[in-house]
Parts: sequence; structure tokens; C-alpha cells
Amino acid sequence: MLTRCLGARRLRQIRRAFRHGAVTFLCLFLTVIVLRGTIGAGKFGTPQQDFDNLRHHLNSHRRVLEEQHSEKTTTTSNNYATFDISTILVDEPPSKDEITRDPKAPYTLGPRITNWDQQRKRWLQQNPNFPNFIAPNKPRVLLVTGSSPKPCENPVGDHYLLKSIKNKIDYCRLHGIEIFYNMALFDAEMAGFWAKLPLIRKLLLSHPEVEFLWWMDSDAMFTDMAFEVPWERYKDHNFVMHGWNEMVYDEKNWIGLNTGSFLLRNCQWSLDILDSWAPMGPKGKVRDEAGKLLTRELKNRPVFEADDQSAMVYLLATERDKWGDKVYLENGYYLHGYWGILVDRYEEMIENYHPGLGDHRWPLVTHFVGCKPCGKFGDYPVERCLRQMDRAYNFGDNQILQMYGFTHKSLASKRVKRVRNESSNPLDVKDELGLLHPAFKAIRLPVSSS
Amino acid sequence: MLTRCLGARRLRQIRRAFRHGAVTFLCLFLTVIVLRGTIGAGKFGTPQQDFDNLRHHLNSHRRVLEEQHSEKTTTTSNNYATFDISTILVDEPPSKDEITRDPKAPYTLGPRITNWDQQRKRWLQQNPNFPNFIAPNKPRVLLVTGSSPKPCENPVGDHYLLKSIKNKIDYCRLHGIEIFYNMALFDAEMAGFWAKLPLIRKLLLSHPEVEFLWWMDSDAMFTDMAFEVPWERYKDHNFVMHGWNEMVYDEKNWIGLNTGSFLLRNCQWSLDILDSWAPMGPKGKVRDEAGKLLTRELKNRPVFEADDQSAMVYLLATERDKWGDKVYLENGYYLHGYWGILVDRYEEMIENYHPGLGDHRWPLVTHFVGCKPCGKFGDYPVERCLRQMDRAYNFGDNQILQMYGFTHKSLASKRVKRVRNESSNPLDVKDELGLLHPAFKAIRLPVSSS
Repeated sequence: MLTRCLGARRLRQIRRAFRHGAVTFLCLFLTVIVLRGTIGAGKFGTPQQDFDNLRHHLNSHRRVLEEQHSEKTTTTSNNYATFDISTILVDEPPSKDEITRDPKAPYTLGPRITNWDQQRKRWLQQNPNFPNFIAPNKPRVLLVTGSSPKPCENPVGDHYLLKSIKNKIDYCRLHGIEIFYNMALFDAEMAGFWAKLPLIRKLLLSHPEVEFLWWMDSDAMFTDMAFEVPWERYKDHNFVMHGWNEMVYDEKNWIGLNTGSFLLRNCQWSLDILDSWAPMGPKGKVRDEAGKLLTRELKNRPVFEADDQSAMVYLLATERDKWGDKVYLENGYYLHGYWGILVDRYEEMIENYHPGLGDHRWPLVTHFVGCKPCGKFGDYPVERCLRQMDRAYNFGDNQILQMYGFTHKSLASKRVKRVRNESSNPLDVKDELGLLHPAFKAIRLPVSSS
Repeated sequence: MLTRCLGARRLRQIRRAFRHGAVTFLCLFLTVIVLRGTIGAGKFGTPQQDFDNLRHHLNSHRRVLEEQHSEKTTTTSNNYATFDISTILVDEPPSKDEITRDPKAPYTLGPRITNWDQQRKRWLQQNPNFPNFIAPNKPRVLLVTGSSPKPCENPVGDHYLLKSIKNKIDYCRLHGIEIFYNMALFDAEMAGFWAKLPLIRKLLLSHPEVEFLWWMDSDAMFTDMAFEVPWERYKDHNFVMHGWNEMVYDEKNWIGLNTGSFLLRNCQWSLDILDSWAPMGPKGKVRDEAGKLLTRELKNRPVFEADDQSAMVYLLATERDKWGDKVYLENGYYLHGYWGILVDRYEEMIENYHPGLGDHRWPLVTHFVGCKPCGKFGDYPVERCLRQMDRAYNFGDNQILQMYGFTHKSLASKRVKRVRNESSNPLDVKDELGLLHPAFKAIRLPVSSS
């Protein structure tokens, strides 16, 4: 069905291209030649991609309106669309020696595991040097993020991916969190925004020493370097997402929670919810049909293939009894914060507040939902996105630079200026936020509590 | 003197451009238009840059020959040239409120410090939660790297910077090393390959808990994920670089050591050698005149402005008595490895050896000296560089992927394939290199030995 549409769509695209006139066409043609030379071939999309991008682009208008009218945060959780397997298949056919599953068998993330808690507990007892808690109420956390193995379709996108991981390196260094940056596609069927599921399962099972896995989209940045996650608050929960109970359980609103930044405990319960989350993911007919169901069942959801966020809202709304008591929908601070309602208020925040609050006064995370700086089509004008991503990066980076006596000349400026003179007694100088040697980073005696 | 040359040089460039013929020129022109649209203005170099790049390009030919004929590793240590202040000044004039030094005073990295060892020792005693050794013979290490705050002149360069930091994140996660990724220019005068000096001094003085700072260029990648630096070997040394005593002290050969990847102990001696290293750095007349001296005094050095590597060779060769006994020129493994003599041998290494050796059999670091993937002019054809950087990245990444049962389909391929089936007892599966939970990463009781 997908493939049958292609011919017609392509024709319409080509006609549109010609309407742009001969000169424009010549420019574009020459540019493509040169760009291909500079960046390498296979970057300009397959028919599949063009179709996906076109469809996404058509869908996006309704979504933008919804987001802009929403008082609450929102996401398409779609920055992983560049992770589309079609962009990877284009230059290499699948090879014989790959271990692949039987196409007739129903999709699973892997062999069923029912005793993970016991397996993990035993391992932790046998490996006291790898405790799952590095201090009381300080779990060992692995932050997981990633991006496509190929250069961005929009070349400047890679520069923003670089700034985004630099930003995460800074927060994680300060808070004693390890980072796994993924650039591989572990499961072709789960391409796109579903790629995180097999990756997360794989990492939970490979790292029993990790108590919490923190998934964060590549288009989300830390904007409060001082805020420590209130781990103690989640001691009886396994899955923490930014969201609201009423929006998820009562309204079944597809933006009632966000899956662009969440915490998942390493336990059997998490493996189970991943298994229940995954079935709408397999690319093609399954994902497309599931998309229709989700659009029908969820409030305000546009027409597009099944996405991981809608699937989670649907799962929780329909099986609240099974999962609800271990899911914590957090809105006391911005575990995820929608950029549209935050980036223009940074100066106001600097005026009135200080880092460490994590909420609307100083958001922990600013998430560039729908910007897709790496992709061809976002929901917003790319210039606006890039300008605002620079502001968010600099807003967070100022909290790093202040430790060393510098600051950006403005939130719009890449340049830095000195705000403190050098001292010959550098250890007597205290950085205003006390982030150089924060208490939450100090090494304490490991306490294993599995 | 620098500025007076510009007119003539520019003219020659423009004439050369025209010789390429009208069609090529049209292509380039249209491309520039489109690229400016895509990437934004201010990216195509100032006269200063064009001049620097042109001069570097002209110089490069001799250097390439030297490198290709060298049996030993070599570098221009020049990947920081994109850090040229001119690229930053171009869009913003310096502002009034900046704290700047008196231009008549001689350049220093900062106020003189003579009692750092005592200051640091006192701090370590007062902060037992931040020990400088995290285990016996396991110093606390901060890996420092970075790149320009602006997108690369060659757009695909940012994608390789992203892969390069992903690669460093992997090695550092496995070996319990923290990362500081710098994107700011702390000292305009020390732009280019000298930018690391003020940055390193600043970090040593801000982080007394750090015992060793590991500088690594952004164009260097870890290719042996299992190799642990033999820290015990350096217990009586403060400065570890890849190099050879005879080439530095006898030959005064400008490639007798490499400053693209080195270890520096956090102590007074290191502050002192940074002070002695810096004077040739200030941009303009000082750096240009120093360049002439270095080319005159050092073996095989091409004609170009003073670089940090030549300056270090000169310093050690002329003041061996003062510094020599605390400098360890390492050639027992590749703390830095010249890509030209390594990347074509990866298959042979896979055939005959295994990770963990760190030397010619399985190099710890592969350094893409002279490639400048982020800049406009490198010493080598950019396609060759990018192809080889992909091979180096995949060679290192295979050691990460094997932990999770995957591998790249080939050293040339971004795609991965499964090499192990999923197990329902994941903890019984041992990864072949034992990197999932390596002994050198285990937390032990902190021992402070300052």
C-alpha cells in the first residue's frame, strides 16, 4: 500500500520542482552536484524517505497548532525520524550472514525473560565493585541518547547534535552520570522513533549495575546544570515521564506525557512494559494500522503512523490497573520542557531566579520538539529553531562557564567574556553556583541496595 | 606585516579562481549562495583566514612529504586552526565591558603562582570526598578536547567531530575518565593550536581533584578500547607525550614528539612548563617571528607561524636540564598514532592481534594529523581523510558493539549486524573482551595520596 502511493507522490513532487522555474532548478542541480561532492552520495533521500518526509510535513501543520495552543508541554518525539532505516539501506543491501528473525513470527524485543530481578540481584551480590547505588538515594544512572549513523540531511544539523552532546557531557560530569551515545541501528524493524526500545532493553540487560536508565532525545538540552533529580521521590516507582495523570488517564490526550526524556528503572517490570509498548513499532503495515487506531482513540492526535509516545499514552490509559501504580507522571519540574513556552523567557528567568529550581523558573530540560535540525522537514522554520537552540545551549553553557570565570556575551552570542579576574589563589575563589565540587558529586562509600 | 601581504595574496587567489573557467565559477558561485542559505553567513572566511589557510596549504606539501617518508609518527597538531579568533570576530566586534590585559605588558597565561603544590595538597586534605586517586595507581583523569564554537567550514566536518566525541565518550566511560569538551575561546591571543594552553591551565587550577589532565585533539580517536594507560610507569613524571628522546634532544626534529595527545600532571611543575611554553603563542608578530626562529632551529620544519608542538620540541631541546627528568617521551604504545601508518593495517591487526595491546599491533590512538575535516584546507584529499576516519571510528566502535552482540558489517560500513543471538540469561553471556564490567572500572575505596 505504501509502495503503491509512491509513483503518484513522486510525480507531484517533480511537477512542483519544475514550477519553481528553470533558473532555480539549475541552481539546485549544480548545488546538488557540489554538495554530493562535499558530503558524499546517498544523502538526498530514497523515495521512501521523501514520502515519509512529505507525509510528516503534511501532518505537521495541525500538530504545530496544537502545540502552540497547548498551555502544557508537548512533543512529536520525532527527532529520531532521521534514524529511518531507509536512509541506511540505500547504500547497502542486507547481507546473507545477518541473524534475522522469522518474518511470520510475531514481533518481540527478544527472548522472554521472567526472572530478571533475581538474575540481577544475584549479579549485584557477586559484583560488589559495581553497586547499583553509588550513595544513599543516589542510584547509578546511565543517560542514553543518540543520532543517525549518517550525516544530517541538513548539514548544519550535525553542529547542533555536537552542541547537544557537549551540553549533556557537562550535566552528566557534574552529576556523576554515565553516557551512552548510540549511532547504530540495532533493529531495522524498529527504525525511527521506535529505535530507542530495543536499545534500552539491550542496555538494561547488559548493565545490571545501572539502576536507572535516562533516555533523552538528541534535540533536548539541559538548561539547569545545578538541578539534581529528586531520586528519593521515585523509590516506589519504575518509570518517570513528564506528564499529567488527568491528561493521560482521563482525556487520553496524545500529548498528556512526553517520551523524549524519561527515567526507567532496571527491573523485570520495565522489561514487561517494554514488551507491551513495542508491538505497534514494527515498520510498515503494523505501524501504519496502529497509527489509525491511535488517531481514532487518542485526543487531538494527527493522522500519522504509530509513534512511541501515543502508544505509551494508549497503553497507560487502557491498562492503568496493570501499570499505573509504578508510573510517575512528573510535572513538579521540567524532566522535559517544551521549548515553545520556555526559550523566550530565559532573560526573565535570569532576572528573577537562579539555577537549581528545574521548573518553570529555571527548566531542567529544554526540548526542541518538532524542530528536527538534522532532518529535511521540521514543524517550525529551521532558522527559528537554530536561533532558539543556540539560546538554550548558551543559557545552559553559562552555568558551566561561570565556574571558570566566563560567560557568553549574550544568549545569542558564541563569544565568551571574562567575568572574574584570574587569582593567584584560585582555590579561594568560589564559583557562584558551587558547581565545581558539588556535594552530589562527591564519592561516598558504595552502598549496594538491590 | 601580516596585513600588508593580504592585497597581493587575494589578487593571486582571484586570478586563480578565474583560471578555473566560467562554468566552474558559476557552479561555485551558485553553491556559495545556496550554502550560505543552508549554513548561514559569516562562514566563508575573512581575508585573515583565507590568508592563513592559503599559507598553511602552501606549507603543507613539504610537510606531507616529510610525514609520508617518516617511519615514525608525526603531526602538524593543527586541527585547532578552525579555532582561529578571526572566525569569531567576524560577526561580533569586541565589547567595552571585557576584562582585557594591558597590550604593552608581556604575555602571561595568568598571575604567577609559585605554591600550587601546597595549595592543592591543603585542598585535597580538606576535601576527602574528592580524592585525586580513585584507586591505587588509578589517578583521577580529566580528558580535555574541543572544537570551534562555529559550524565547520566543511559542513560534513561536524559529523566527524560528533563521531570523534562519541568515540571518546565510549573509551572514557569504560576507563572511568571524565570529559571536558571545550567550545569557548578563553584567550583571543592564543587562538589556533595554542588555545589549549590557557584552557589547560584554567582546568588544572579549577580542579585540584584531577591528578592527570589528558589533552586530546578533536581529530584523534581511540582505536583500542581495552588498553589502560600504564599509570604506574609515570609515577615519577609530570608530562607524558608520544615521542623519542634522540629525535627531540639530539636531532631537534620538529616531529620528535606529538602534542595532539598528552598527559599532564596537576602540579606546580606543570604550571611552570606551561608558562615557559606559552611565550611564542600570542597571535601576530610574536607568533610569526617565533615561527622563523623555530624553522631555523628545528630539523625539517616548514615555514609557518609558531605552533605549540615545535615550541615544545625547542623548549625541551634547549632546556633539557630544567625539564627533561620529568618529561616521559612514550613510544611503547600509541598515546598518539599517526593515521598514515595505521589505518591501512586494521584488517591485518584484526587477523593477527586483539585489543588491549595499544601499540603497532593494536594502536590506542589513531590521530588524523593534517586532515582538518572541519577546515577548508587539509594536507590530504578530504575524501581520503573521511574514508579513513570512518574506518578508524568503526574499528574502535566494533570493540564497543561486541559487548552488545553486534559489529559493523565492514570497517567501511555504517551498518551493524548481529553476531550473537539474544539470550534469556543475558548475564551468563560474556563479551569477548570483558569490557562490560572491566576490573579497571570497578569502584574501590578512595585512597587520597597527594
